[in-house]
Amino acid sequence: MIKTFASDNYAGAHPDVMQAIINANVGHAAAYGADDYTTSAINKFKALLGDDIEVHFAYNGTGANVLGLASLTNAYNSIICSDLAHINVDESTAPEKFTGCKLVTVPTKNGKIYPEQIEEKIIRIDDQHHPQVKVISISQSTEYGTVYTIDEIKAISAVAKKNNLYLHMDGSRIANAAVSLQAEIKAITRDAGVDVLSFGGTKNGMLFGEAVVFFNTSVAKNFKYIRKQSMQLHSKMRFISAQFDALLTNNLWKKNATHANKMAQILKRRLQEIPGVTITQSVDANGIFALLPPAIIAKLQAVHYFYVWNEKTSEVRLMCAFDTTEEQVNAFADVALKLATQDTGL
Amino acid sequence: MIKTFASDNYAGAHPDVMQAIINANVGHAAAYGADDYTTSAINKFKALLGDDIEVHFAYNGTGANVLGLASLTNAYNSIICSDLAHINVDESTAPEKFTGCKLVTVPTKNGKIYPEQIEEKIIRIDDQHHPQVKVISISQSTEYGTVYTIDEIKAISAVAKKNNLYLHMDGSRIANAAVSLQAEIKAITRDAGVDVLSFGGTKNGMLFGEAVVFFNTSVAKNFKYIRKQSMQLHSKMRFISAQFDALLTNNLWKKNATHANKMAQILKRRLQEIPGVTITQSVDANGIFALLPPAIIAKLQAVHYFYVWNEKTSEVRLMCAFDTTEEQVNAFADVALKLATQDTGL
Amino acid sequence: MIKTFASDNYAGAHPDVMQAIINANVGHAAAYGADDYTTSAINKFKALLGDDIEVHFAYNGTGANVLGLASLTNAYNSIICSDLAHINVDESTAPEKFTGCKLVTVPTKNGKIYPEQIEEKIIRIDDQHHPQVKVISISQSTEYGTVYTIDEIKAISAVAKKNNLYLHMDGSRIANAAVSLQAEIKAITRDAGVDVLSFGGTKNGMLFGEAVVFFNTSVAKNFKYIRKQSMQLHSKMRFISAQFDALLTNNLWKKNATHANKMAQILKRRLQEIPGVTITQSVDANGIFALLPPAIIAKLQAVHYFYVWNEKTSEVRLMCAFDTTEEQVNAFADVALKLATQDTGL
Amino acid sequence: MIKTFASDNYAGAHPDVMQAIINANVGHAAAYGADDYTTSAINKFKALLGDDIEVHFAYNGTGANVLGLASLTNAYNSIICSDLAHINVDESTAPEKFTGCKLVTVPTKNGKIYPEQIEEKIIRIDDQHHPQVKVISISQSTEYGTVYTIDEIKAISAVAKKNNLYLHMDGSRIANAAVSLQAEIKAITRDAGVDVLSFGGTKNGMLFGEAVVFFNTSVAKNFKYIRKQSMQLHSKMRFISAQFDALLTNNLWKKNATHANKMAQILKRRLQEIPGVTITQSVDANGIFALLPPAIIAKLQAVHYFYVWNEKTSEVRLMCAFDTTEEQVNAFADVALKLATQDTGL
Repeated sequence: MIKTFASDNYAGAHPDVMQAIINANVGHAAAYGADDYTTSAINKFKALLGDDIEVHFAYNGTGANVLGLASLTNAYNSIICSDLAHINVDESTAPEKFTGCKLVTVPTKNGKIYPEQIEEKIIRIDDQHHPQVKVISISQSTEYGTVYTIDEIKAISAVAKKNNLYLHMDGSRIANAAVSLQAEIKAITRDAGVDVLSFGGTKNGMLFGEAVVFFNTSVAKNFKYIRKQSMQLHSKMRFISAQFDALLTNNLWKKNATHANKMAQILKRRLQEIPGVTITQSVDANGIFALLPPAIIAKLQAVHYFYVWNEKTSEVRLMCAFDTTEEQVNAFADVALKLATQDTGL
Repeated sequence: MIKTFASDNYAGAHPDVMQAIINANVGHAAAYGADDYTTSAINKFKALLGDDIEVHFAYNGTGANVLGLASLTNAYNSIICSDLAHINVDESTAPEKFTGCKLVTVPTKNGKIYPEQIEEKIIRIDDQHHPQVKVISISQSTEYGTVYTIDEIKAISAVAKKNNLYLHMDGSRIANAAVSLQAEIKAITRDAGVDVLSFGGTKNGMLFGEAVVFFNTSVAKNFKYIRKQSMQLHSKMRFISAQFDALLTNNLWKKNATHANKMAQILKRRLQEIPGVTITQSVDANGIFALLPPAIIAKLQAVHYFYVWNEKTSEVRLMCAFDTTEEQVNAFADVALKLATQDTGL
Repeated sequence: MIKTFASDNYAGAHPDVMQAIINANVGHAAAYGADDYTTSAINKFKALLGDDIEVHFAYNGTGANVLGLASLTNAYNSIICSDLAHINVDESTAPEKFTGCKLVTVPTKNGKIYPEQIEEKIIRIDDQHHPQVKVISISQSTEYGTVYTIDEIKAISAVAKKNNLYLHMDGSRIANAAVSLQAEIKAITRDAGVDVLSFGGTKNGMLFGEAVVFFNTSVAKNFKYIRKQSMQLHSKMRFISAQFDALLTNNLWKKNATHANKMAQILKRRLQEIPGVTITQSVDANGIFALLPPAIIAKLQAVHYFYVWNEKTSEVRLMCAFDTTEEQVNAFADVALKLATQDTGL
Repeated sequence: MIKTFASDNYAGAHPDVMQAIINANVGHAAAYGADDYTTSAINKFKALLGDDIEVHFAYNGTGANVLGLASLTNAYNSIICSDLAHINVDESTAPEKFTGCKLVTVPTKNGKIYPEQIEEKIIRIDDQHHPQVKVISISQSTEYGTVYTIDEIKAISAVAKKNNLYLHMDGSRIANAAVSLQAEIKAITRDAGVDVLSFGGTKNGMLFGEAVVFFNTSVAKNFKYIRKQSMQLHSKMRFISAQFDALLTNNLWKKNATHANKMAQILKRRLQEIPGVTITQSVDANGIFALLPPAIIAKLQAVHYFYVWNEKTSEVRLMCAFDTTEEQVNAFADVALKLATQDTGL
């Protein structure tokens, strides 16, 4: 069964990333990050995002998010996010268990949350009985494949600053967002007022590894202890670092995201031509959400597996990765078209 | 600076393990373990340890230990371990933070704990005021490079069973222990009464990845949730699984451990010939603890870095890995000998 | 400043309750519940609610709720409740911090939640990535002073049973609810399918103390450890027990609640006569929610303090207690009427 | 069965304390501490301990200790205490569960810990792998009925300051210690370098209630949230405050402790005259530890219940309270003497 569009974490590693791991596998190196590969990777992060940042590596996206949020909060705080946020619906109760905080959710239709919604949730400040809001967390790109504009982020950041809150960004697909906006990552994170960023590696072509980037370095002072305690400290760190080094060399991160986004656009256009198919969300990055004719879903999944996002509405999610090919996109669309037009000769 | 003897996690990956990762990097595969590589690796674990076990993969040793302990406890329990146990002194407060439990420590001189010591700590059962003992955790091989005999493990297991406790084994170096005992891993774990085992991968030649092996599968029923919640669930699981598959193919785990242990023996013999050097622990596995003449330590570290275990006594720890060479051992011993015999021609 | 209507926990202790404490203050008695006062109180609970229950005492409402929820959950679970639930908005993050669970909220307009809303939240069962729903928690009477009918509770209980969930009831005002329904507490809790009940003492005339009542005793087996660990175990337990004994003697609980509810009805009728006042919620128990003319709120508070529930809408909350007098009700209404009708002679 | 010497928390409330509760039971008062009783009690604490302290009330000793420790730590910290400390052996895993910290224990023979022992545990500072020591916690008087001299406390405080640690004192019997030392409480806490004190109320004649006293107020800034989140915030606070007010009026705390300590001295002298009885600890405060002839223990318990501290050595603990009478002491000693001298006429 081909699983091309199921998830960008169904993809493997980019060849350059794999090569970087092979290259790093030479002799002994100090563990836990005191090695040259880590120094090099951190320097490349600084070149990309600013010299005065702090960067640390973690194993996975949930880890990076929880570490960032733990750095920003005390256990009696709350974190505002969308009701579809990965931290709210796809990370078990890791955020609650590790931070102790409550996640306060804002309903979203497109994956984004907006200043006026957020402000409604900033209540009962200084009231000991009520969880004290301390962080706004947004996903960029969002779980619905949409991308906040820089102005949208700045507007949220303004709410954060006005209310003495931090702005956290779940950037497991930050590369796809930057490409979508034709902007530098720095412009859509640091310059837009983000305090802490989960910088995604896995979905952009790494085997494993994510980065926690502190633009606000004042909250990072206990990070090393929090990371160790959360079981997210890798011993043979060079093997995460070398991968990030590869991603940040010759803009590989951008190439990978550009390709994935492009495939999504092609797939979108092909799907739009199919009778009974409705694209439900703006295809800003590498994900497509679409209503499919219910009758064709199982048949289509049998050929190219993907996830049904909403059983009731027959909305599906199709993800493109750095290695998705135009042939795969067209083959998928061809099958979908045939099925939708009743060519039951499949 | 050569860091040959600093730690077995300073080593890289074994070439076969690296090749397995390269081989697994083909196309898309289902995430989170629903892939063929994971199935294959689990089957090899079952061939090694018994068909009715449960095996799950985690990122690192702290993760594997904490997941195992969390599966065995409620938050009001306590865990008996040696005062030198990795879970007690080298995992920050991850065990306490994640499980809520208290670690009750038994003093050790050689890394091992003994039945009579353990029984002294099994007190105040059913007393709501007192942490309720539920687990005995031992490390095999120990943090002092010693190895429990099968009889020693069975004696501890008998204490556990008699008192309705579980037996957990931190096996980050389980391969070295099995080789040391010239026994199968199954014989020194499952057959000796272990309920849950952390099966080490990283220190035996993997880039990353450890396994949690449940011999007592009744306690594993919530494991998947506990793992996700603890941030230890890898998305591109095939890249952990393929590594374990390689380790469990053609007894690579055993070859790696055999080699490391052998290098430790050679190093031990060389060190014993050096004036002023005292081997402090039985060299059962791949680690050597020795008192060195204080004057030579810094000079020796400058050439081949290693860790001082106890500043006061000038006890040092020297670890051998799967890739330590006899040349490195001899080169190190030669320098030590020269320094110890005042050949200041260095 | 008179604070008559601010909260039922602004009231003191009922004289019979105080007398019971005085009576219990004789000589030494075993601590932690192994005393005759506790045995007597538990027996009275059993007479009221059934012989096969388990009852334990805690310090306060947050404690009782969190202990009940902790008994029903693992850390990877979630708890469905109304977005106005006390556990969601008035207990800091105690539920999240102690249980690790996520609270999944259902919007409410009247304090109640309904089966169809609840069922929408029962999703992704067995999915390791998603918090696993395990408990439905409802408040009786609700935070909006409304009371679930027995049929409403049974309908929710049916949803719980169908989906293998537990039903928890925050009964900090359970007495007021029972009186409102003219039913026995047993009928609206145990017989309606409740598994665990927080039985309120403080707001019904005690100085301190709440009870956790397990109708489903299978989940209580670790309770004593959970209570001690949560810091909710009182040493001089007789002083909680004696209070409950008094409440459960000669139906004092019912008399107290009947009086408070009656005062609320009188106040409601008086307020309904005042121009510009709108009662916003059904006055089922001892609380009244009403829109007041904004101009009179501060002036009215200056005389008889109460809380503004919603600044934007000028909705206020007025609580009656076991000791609220008809004179106080009328005095308050008189002032409100004068203010509302511009009699500025105040 | 008379339980006179079982525990000081088997005693009831002092009549003045009870009267204070009765007096406070007038009308409505603001909840959660915004009442005049609380203001008055806090002012009396300030008169006793200094104007610039912060004082907050909690329900019980475990609560007060955990709140103090939580105010002083992050989850990756450790807390040094004696292996017999109440926080280590009698509070379930409440400290670990709520703070996340590890308790690092120092062996004690008399309940006290000493600077050189403490300094041995201050290791691996700044090492992310190791729990970071942050607090030294001592009990005054100790669990063995002994009392630290002022110089002993100052010596520990000096270690704390030198190593950038906080000094926490579990003062559940602080009054008995002050009386023993013929010193003001201020002199043995604040002036000796204590940062945070659990000031015991329950064992000194209250029904319930303890105080957390911050001499170092910089660590108290989040206390109100921590207390609420830990379920230790009482709604009808006046009923704790009024009790403390009574204890702090006319030196009632001192009278109660003086009496209890005096009874302990009398009992000690009587016991010393009994053949086969050995007093094992210095009787500094209100507790006596003694080896009794094994044959008489059960018979003596049947008359006057008390706890066996160590089954193996037949060491028992005898506690005196504010209400222990000289008649009770002599009656107990008479029986013990008879039993020990084989007068089986009992």
